[in-house]
Amino acid sequence: MNKTTKKDSKWAHKDLLGLEYLSREDIKLLLETADSFREILDRPIKKVPALRGKTVVNLFYEPSTRTRVSFEIAAKRLSADVINIATETSSVRKGETLNDTGKNIEALKADIIVVRHNCSGAASMLARHVNISVVNAGDGWHEHPTQGLLDIFTLKKKLGRIEALNVTIVGDIAHSRVARSNIWGLTKLGAKVTVCAPRMLIPPGIEKMGVSVTNNIDEALSSADAVNVLRMQFERDEKGAFPKQLEYFKNFGITEERLKRAQKDIIVMHPGPINRGVEISSKVADGTNSVILEQVTNGIAVRMAVLFWLSQVNKL
Amino acid sequence: MNKTTKKDSKWAHKDLLGLEYLSREDIKLLLETADSFREILDRPIKKVPALRGKTVVNLFYEPSTRTRVSFEIAAKRLSADVINIATETSSVRKGETLNDTGKNIEALKADIIVVRHNCSGAASMLARHVNISVVNAGDGWHEHPTQGLLDIFTLKKKLGRIEALNVTIVGDIAHSRVARSNIWGLTKLGAKVTVCAPRMLIPPGIEKMGVSVTNNIDEALSSADAVNVLRMQFERDEKGAFPKQLEYFKNFGITEERLKRAQKDIIVMHPGPINRGVEISSKVADGTNSVILEQVTNGIAVRMAVLFWLSQVNKL
Amino acid sequence: MNKTTKKDSKWAHKDLLGLEYLSREDIKLLLETADSFREILDRPIKKVPALRGKTVVNLFYEPSTRTRVSFEIAAKRLSADVINIATETSSVRKGETLNDTGKNIEALKADIIVVRHNCSGAASMLARHVNISVVNAGDGWHEHPTQGLLDIFTLKKKLGRIEALNVTIVGDIAHSRVARSNIWGLTKLGAKVTVCAPRMLIPPGIEKMGVSVTNNIDEALSSADAVNVLRMQFERDEKGAFPKQLEYFKNFGITEERLKRAQKDIIVMHPGPINRGVEISSKVADGTNSVILEQVTNGIAVRMAVLFWLSQVNKL
Repeated sequence: MNKTTKKDSKWAHKDLLGLEYLSREDIKLLLETADSFREILDRPIKKVPALRGKTVVNLFYEPSTRTRVSFEIAAKRLSADVINIATETSSVRKGETLNDTGKNIEALKADIIVVRHNCSGAASMLARHVNISVVNAGDGWHEHPTQGLLDIFTLKKKLGRIEALNVTIVGDIAHSRVARSNIWGLTKLGAKVTVCAPRMLIPPGIEKMGVSVTNNIDEALSSADAVNVLRMQFERDEKGAFPKQLEYFKNFGITEERLKRAQKDIIVMHPGPINRGVEISSKVADGTNSVILEQVTNGIAVRMAVLFWLSQVNKL
Repeated sequence: MNKTTKKDSKWAHKDLLGLEYLSREDIKLLLETADSFREILDRPIKKVPALRGKTVVNLFYEPSTRTRVSFEIAAKRLSADVINIATETSSVRKGETLNDTGKNIEALKADIIVVRHNCSGAASMLARHVNISVVNAGDGWHEHPTQGLLDIFTLKKKLGRIEALNVTIVGDIAHSRVARSNIWGLTKLGAKVTVCAPRMLIPPGIEKMGVSVTNNIDEALSSADAVNVLRMQFERDEKGAFPKQLEYFKNFGITEERLKRAQKDIIVMHPGPINRGVEISSKVADGTNSVILEQVTNGIAVRMAVLFWLSQVNKL
Repeated sequence: MNKTTKKDSKWAHKDLLGLEYLSREDIKLLLETADSFREILDRPIKKVPALRGKTVVNLFYEPSTRTRVSFEIAAKRLSADVINIATETSSVRKGETLNDTGKNIEALKADIIVVRHNCSGAASMLARHVNISVVNAGDGWHEHPTQGLLDIFTLKKKLGRIEALNVTIVGDIAHSRVARSNIWGLTKLGAKVTVCAPRMLIPPGIEKMGVSVTNNIDEALSSADAVNVLRMQFERDEKGAFPKQLEYFKNFGITEERLKRAQKDIIVMHPGPINRGVEISSKVADGTNSVILEQVTNGIAVRMAVLFWLSQVNKL
């Protein structure tokens, strides 16, 4: 799916479309590079010239301030120019297709397109049509690879390794690109992943991805080194297919009481924005087990690493 | 309300939340610094490296192009990177609270948040929750400190002093953060302030802020060195509590005829955008007494001074 | 209509409002300068310091991502700071007039305003009211001079000259600022221009602009060196004045079959975004005669040239 450029450079992908398409070595390279960029973020002058004269286009068909801002800051820390395109103010209105938009951005001599789209596969389709690099910043229910990478990076920073860790993902697995990217990345690096959700929010056949499945949150937490709590998007549930919000919190919400029965040092992660009292209690979100804000910081470092390596491939 | 960092630096506030919380010396320091930045704006290359590698986030919960653009230009003149977040395209949609948004922006390693919010006290609440600097760019009816500072800066540039000046503020005092910031700043520097409005637009107890009150515009103008004309936001008056627009203009509008009975060199100010023929006549707005466009220019210099000093505190 | 500054500089216009107001020499100067900037776009570091410390404001009263992004990239390639103002989030909401907005942008010490507006003449009105430079990025049905310039630049790059070329423009001539700018520019440089459209889309008296008129597309293509295909904006046709979409494609759509009867090397241009199957077939749009994406690239170079020369005039 990725066009690749073989040479002795360690990174050989034109695009970052999903963790499914990366090797264990690719992921490790990104994590190592992110580690070196992470240090820059604590400097008084948080800027390096690696992407000076390059242009990164944020092409967002879904509103997502968090992801857009994270990529925008990452690109600016690397001294790239950033162009934001959001559907609300876009010529997408005039019916231009994604591929034509992509070809136009390429013709504008941009170097990297960061695309968020509500359709699974949109980023891959775009990547096949343009010669410049594409980063998938979330495509439908498919993947959100930089979120997966930053979750893994955060775990590695806290626990020193990914190999043989027990990681539980709780929430709407069926509609979660975050879950899918986490599963691909974590299993490639040797973690044991359990997904936990009400039955209707578990996609059929998910076991084939190499994960364990349970509907019992206490069981899922008991041996977990880390729990990744997904956002419950009740606002997207137009068909009433979700369990009632309070019932969900009672049965699956991550609370202090529930954590007492888990490992003392369990890491609590969340891709944000958190719904306090929906999928996670405020005390847990703000508590000592939570690394939610570290994830946000690490997201900048991981995205800098991704933009850096993609810009290196473009040079070839 | 401000956390402060004591040392021999002259400026000791983490945040700029309102002129109420500044000392006379603080205000003077900002005015002096603005004066030195004002000169940069007339250079061919209008840029200094003071905030290179710093990130300023404009977090706007109310649309305000003027204020956002003024802060954006001020930050870019100082070589900062600027990230714009507007509620329309924001994850605020997804129900993230102001404080969580603030913590996330802090985790993104931004240095300064410039916040505009429709609730009084929003900026102060945000400032208490984050360790990075917060600038209040207008919070409900409470304060708009950089507007107050730029009005005072403009007066000082024109008249050489603030001490003992007679300054009249005309308009909707009750709902005006601009009025409140002007009153706090001007009285601290020794000006005599008179507020003038229809009775229903004067907040009860305003005299306690050290101002005179009148409903008679001609009286209010007769001894004024300057008049600050507030925008009448008839479009916000959903309850019909305001006097009719034409009646307002007849009784309180600043016209050439009315100015003939004031001091010849009276300074006419307006925070903009002006409503021609509503609170001010076109002839006055464009006339020789008006400093309305100078206020806009001075706003850049004042905001550069604020961003500069806040970035210095962050360094400690 | 343009205020001019006479001196030995070759470019003497404060503004770029339309190709109607430029001399043959002015246009040639812009094309030559664009040619030298075009080369920068293929460098690894696509940035020159020509406009460092300058501020370009994109003031868009109509949404147009393509044009806004092209100007934004052009300005950033020249190291200018760029401020985007769109009506959706603007104080235009509060009823500020175009001229007051312009005076405010001038007071903010911006150097160049790039304005898109739905009223013909808006850019010229703005240019008369401010002392800084104004670029018309499309005003109603009047002109879109940088689009005209980039079309001409592209033709010149492909065919080596403009003099005596036969250029056909097909589509909604009556409501097209692109057509008008092309006609002014091409005829000044000695091209022979034919416009082709259904009768109701030909403005009365168009012949006075020095063009031939026909309703017969095959005739219009037979001797053409190039055809410029206008976008059919059926979505703007609220009154049903347009021919039905399918009928339009049948009678005026540029298809492979139709091109077979034209010159073998006919150049096919389109200002974008293209409507596949409405005014042009996909095969032609993506075919070997098409230079549509080259136009997009050339647009950056042309806009860099315009911003560069306007910034030189400001210096005087």
